Amino acid sequence: MDETLLMIPGPTRVAPRVLKAMSENIVNHRSALFGEILTETNQMMSEVFQTENQSYLITGSGTAAMEAALANTLSKGDRVLNIVGGKFGQRFMQITETHRGIPVQLEVEWGHGVNPDDVRYILEEEEDIKAVTIVHNETSTGVANPIDEVGKILKDYDALYIVDTVSSLGGDDVFVDGYGIDICVTGSQKCLAAPPGIAAVTFSDDAWDVVDKTDNQTYYLNMKKYRKIGDATPPETPYTPAVSLIYAMQEALRVIMEEGLEERVRRHKLAAEATRNGVKALGLDLFAQKEVASNTVTSIKMPEGITDKELRGTMRERYRIELAGGQDHLKGNVFRIGHMGNITHREIISTIAALEMTMQGLGLDVEIGSGVAAVADTYLEV
Amino acid sequence: MDETLLMIPGPTRVAPRVLKAMSENIVNHRSALFGEILTETNQMMSEVFQTENQSYLITGSGTAAMEAALANTLSKGDRVLNIVGGKFGQRFMQITETHRGIPVQLEVEWGHGVNPDDVRYILEEEEDIKAVTIVHNETSTGVANPIDEVGKILKDYDALYIVDTVSSLGGDDVFVDGYGIDICVTGSQKCLAAPPGIAAVTFSDDAWDVVDKTDNQTYYLNMKKYRKIGDATPPETPYTPAVSLIYAMQEALRVIMEEGLEERVRRHKLAAEATRNGVKALGLDLFAQKEVASNTVTSIKMPEGITDKELRGTMRERYRIELAGGQDHLKGNVFRIGHMGNITHREIISTIAALEMTMQGLGLDVEIGSGVAAVADTYLEV
Repeated sequence: MDETLLMIPGPTRVAPRVLKAMSENIVNHRSALFGEILTETNQMMSEVFQTENQSYLITGSGTAAMEAALANTLSKGDRVLNIVGGKFGQRFMQITETHRGIPVQLEVEWGHGVNPDDVRYILEEEEDIKAVTIVHNETSTGVANPIDEVGKILKDYDALYIVDTVSSLGGDDVFVDGYGIDICVTGSQKCLAAPPGIAAVTFSDDAWDVVDKTDNQTYYLNMKKYRKIGDATPPETPYTPAVSLIYAMQEALRVIMEEGLEERVRRHKLAAEATRNGVKALGLDLFAQKEVASNTVTSIKMPEGITDKELRGTMRERYRIELAGGQDHLKGNVFRIGHMGNITHREIISTIAALEMTMQGLGLDVEIGSGVAAVADTYLEV
Repeated sequence: MDETLLMIPGPTRVAPRVLKAMSENIVNHRSALFGEILTETNQMMSEVFQTENQSYLITGSGTAAMEAALANTLSKGDRVLNIVGGKFGQRFMQITETHRGIPVQLEVEWGHGVNPDDVRYILEEEEDIKAVTIVHNETSTGVANPIDEVGKILKDYDALYIVDTVSSLGGDDVFVDGYGIDICVTGSQKCLAAPPGIAAVTFSDDAWDVVDKTDNQTYYLNMKKYRKIGDATPPETPYTPAVSLIYAMQEALRVIMEEGLEERVRRHKLAAEATRNGVKALGLDLFAQKEVASNTVTSIKMPEGITDKELRGTMRERYRIELAGGQDHLKGNVFRIGHMGNITHREIISTIAALEMTMQGLGLDVEIGSGVAAVADTYLEV
């Protein structure tokens, strides 16, 4: 049994009651009993999305849901404004290409958030933008993009607003209806704190109108099939779902309902602040710009003279805490602390304490206790 | 907690030790520890496929794997010989269409197996058949197609041999290398007796050659990505997999290794024989032709004057045994008993006993005990 503390941006630690839910006997996925489970789970999912729209669960990763968003709405040659400021922004662009769309890239420097004015500029200049994709929380850089501001701009245009909230939903403000989001996608294993393997999507009426006019380019992710059988009473999924993972989703969403979404977001915000204050007190530099720093993952520049292997290796081997490295060109240059899901002050304190010890062990000049004190101060100030 | 006995053709009952495996803490899916789990699981999967090829696990249903087979090998206008004798044969044809292929349908009467000579005839008559799809065990009709004989024919042609063994692998003979299968797909929740949500695929060198010449039509199911990262040391999956379900797959495959594949197939064969003998003793007629009757699911004609709701409803509500109904035009005309996975004589006897009681309760003329006796005789004869 592995007791390493996961402080990575997903998968996150899953509560025992959620793990336990998976031990229940498998039931027929076409039974009334499973229909009840799916009904409750879908409803809670829509509550977390803060939408009146129906939600659908897909057995697959968040990437499957990202693909479902585009594969069901793009026709050959459709132009898509892809806002790209990290690895997952790039992924939306790659999926656009896979599904024969033409990406119009709005490149954002990694570590920065998108400037909403740039979005308006492109929508004014470019014709026939069918959809705009944005990653709310860019897991690769620790940046939270201003999806509320971008949503306001999109109200003036016909383009579908497609938002990836894989690593933000349940840990940061996401108001699908309030922000005018047409397609919102998320994953089970991040702030929702369920095991990986389930993705969730929700489509607005405008999005369904486009779907209905679009030829099928995918079978497994064909949302028309999900809608047809998912909107029936009792609801089903078109293909055999991961029954045990749906049990886990149901339980994880019940946990969220008990905590309350607002309180949960507040808890994440505080964990993020505490983490930033802790690492800054240790003399480390944050990678993401201050005003767009993520609620759920903090990216930190690797201190000079220390390798990723030394820092994260020591954290893992000696202190049993798993951090994430940088992705793509950030590999070795940043490391990331995930603070999403069931994260409390305890895990943040332990992580910063271990980081102090790791840094000192690697010969860096840190005052033991200073990082932890900054974390504690953050929590005391509330 | 639901204690209904699942006698449906998947999902099947999952052993407590496999359910328990899912309670383990989630680990980082990009860690050495998870790499070890994936290595062992993939290796066991290849053993069950009886292939020297690498196996890959996909988080999704068997349908996702069926789509992976075609989406990675078809280019626009490619002609595919789809052998269609049931719902899942149809599905391969629909997926062919989704991925811009041109289906050449070999229609087989539902309840019958394909005649291998018909396959040869079409391959002789039709030009440029890029691939042949066949469903080994047609779950919708209870027919096992002669994939060994078809494989022998395909050795004389260039077409890729794509076989769906979703509801047969682990319960019937499948020799991927021995039969010359290029792409074999299966699912976790049938004879492998793991929870639903994981699909497995294996590709021959010839299949990879085609994949390498094919443009990407799918992102989530892009097998080039699965190969690139799956063949690394340690192996990973391109997107976050359902970690808990991989734990379950590992444990379920260990169970299979302990039982021995040959013994497992023998057990399924016997369960199928016993089931057929039991229902025949009750005066019921089998739907599938005798010589192609499935090892894993038995389809039975609905007795005259009895509705599906009455028969399966009584079995479910009164005797807590879940049977499957007919699909598509067989709805109401047949019912199906799944006997796959961890099925022993105990479940077969209970099911046939409950069927006797159900039939008598519905006013049919059955001799209580006659079906059970036929089941017992089958097991005694071994």
